[in-house]
Amino acid sequence: MKLLRYGAAGAEKPGLLDSEGKIRDLSGVVGDIAGDTLLPDGLAKLRAIDQATLPLVEGDPRLGPCVAGTGKFICIGLNYSDHAAETGATVPPEPIIFMKATSAIVGPNDAIEIPRGSEKTDWEVELGVVIGKTAKYVSEDEAMDHVAGYCVINDVSERAFQIERHGQWTKGKSADTFGPTGPWLVTADEVEDPQKLAMWLEVNGHRYQNGSTATMVYGVRYLVSYLSQFMSLRPGDIISTGTPPGVGLGLKPPTFLKAGDVVTLGIEGLGTQRQVCVQG
Amino acid sequence: MKLLRYGAAGAEKPGLLDSEGKIRDLSGVVGDIAGDTLLPDGLAKLRAIDQATLPLVEGDPRLGPCVAGTGKFICIGLNYSDHAAETGATVPPEPIIFMKATSAIVGPNDAIEIPRGSEKTDWEVELGVVIGKTAKYVSEDEAMDHVAGYCVINDVSERAFQIERHGQWTKGKSADTFGPTGPWLVTADEVEDPQKLAMWLEVNGHRYQNGSTATMVYGVRYLVSYLSQFMSLRPGDIISTGTPPGVGLGLKPPTFLKAGDVVTLGIEGLGTQRQVCVQG
Repeated sequence: MKLLRYGAAGAEKPGLLDSEGKIRDLSGVVGDIAGDTLLPDGLAKLRAIDQATLPLVEGDPRLGPCVAGTGKFICIGLNYSDHAAETGATVPPEPIIFMKATSAIVGPNDAIEIPRGSEKTDWEVELGVVIGKTAKYVSEDEAMDHVAGYCVINDVSERAFQIERHGQWTKGKSADTFGPTGPWLVTADEVEDPQKLAMWLEVNGHRYQNGSTATMVYGVRYLVSYLSQFMSLRPGDIISTGTPPGVGLGLKPPTFLKAGDVVTLGIEGLGTQRQVCVQG
Repeated sequence: MKLLRYGAAGAEKPGLLDSEGKIRDLSGVVGDIAGDTLLPDGLAKLRAIDQATLPLVEGDPRLGPCVAGTGKFICIGLNYSDHAAETGATVPPEPIIFMKATSAIVGPNDAIEIPRGSEKTDWEVELGVVIGKTAKYVSEDEAMDHVAGYCVINDVSERAFQIERHGQWTKGKSADTFGPTGPWLVTADEVEDPQKLAMWLEVNGHRYQNGSTATMVYGVRYLVSYLSQFMSLRPGDIISTGTPPGVGLGLKPPTFLKAGDVVTLGIEGLGTQRQVCVQG
């Protein structure tokens, strides 16, 4: 299933994308794409519905973030060996973890606000993993049972805030609008192998990132198990698993976003995003 | 006012501590100590109630975290000059920001689970600032209008996870139970000067931390303004403002928590906490 949330920001309704690419309303069935709806049983109930019986949504509504009730937005740093190289870093012997503020989460096509005082706002296409069932001290064998599905994330990053402003990356990762999420939560049963997905990102039509989750250092299965040793993962939590090469910081000369720029990105089978940059 | 939440974990009711130190039930008045209740208008409504008309709560119920709906649990690192010295670090020229997982938040007297594989679980008494009104790009002059009140936080920390496991402190700060919060949210009008509060922490009756918010490097006013430049602060968000000297990592030899240890801590006017350590 391709689950989604549509409507005005803060008042989104749950929906799904049917086999013809049309949005169907789920608000008569579930309260939101969140919490218990993400449990294996909750998803099984949705899967059992004849989609043709769900109301069609007219027009072309705004899409919100594809999951609600996200308690943690956990990111993995330097998780593609060639991205680590372009930033001058080495691949760490264990995953690097940092948090994005959950208040950074926005819809996939909402504007990116360039923060006041920012000169180094950058892009990062990432595979997002949405937790479906609480995970605490789970093994790699069990890990995938806790994944509801996958989505596209743009891990927007202010490099000066992140690196030059004295400590901990979260400072450059958390501005409002720095976490476009969606368009869809594609349930895990529809993603044959999360480690074989092509991914790309363009700014003003120029392709800067062109990678694949195949070159991830620590894969989804490992990350879910690893993270669950340090904190419990709960339904709706998102793990953003790192970015392949081609971010602005790694270019020669470094290149950053400015108001008016248009960012488009996507991951194979998970849909695309489009953001216009505006001054915050 | 001293606002609080009482009852079983996950099913807490809102309440307050009356002038005689008794718990009064607020569940007929507000849904929870969260969201709009924390806005200046929401607190004014609670303040206008004759407390004697509220139902008395019998017995000695468990206290939950004093605020619900916390979207961000933001911590400030090395924010006491003498604590920085004891850990071998220098005071940073700007505040260091990191996040604790919100899933770490527990009641003030709940057990601390020592994580599996942990040998360096440590304590940190901290002044918690609870946001009452959304703050985005606010000046220092405006900052205090966005503070609902204050509480005691134990920023429990696993030092090996934080420092030796390859990156970003959040890894050692986020285990379940690592964020005892409360007993009370003491509203800002009852705290004459948040920069003049004595604070202390004991393990098994031995006093390890004995400080004052007077020696904070970056004070509450500055922190609220500073953070609001990097992310929007929203009602229920908590800022844990750093710890004074006396953490286990700074002792010679370093000393850490083990199952059976009892941690007690408090801040002047904000109440006390007591946690028994158990193996997770």
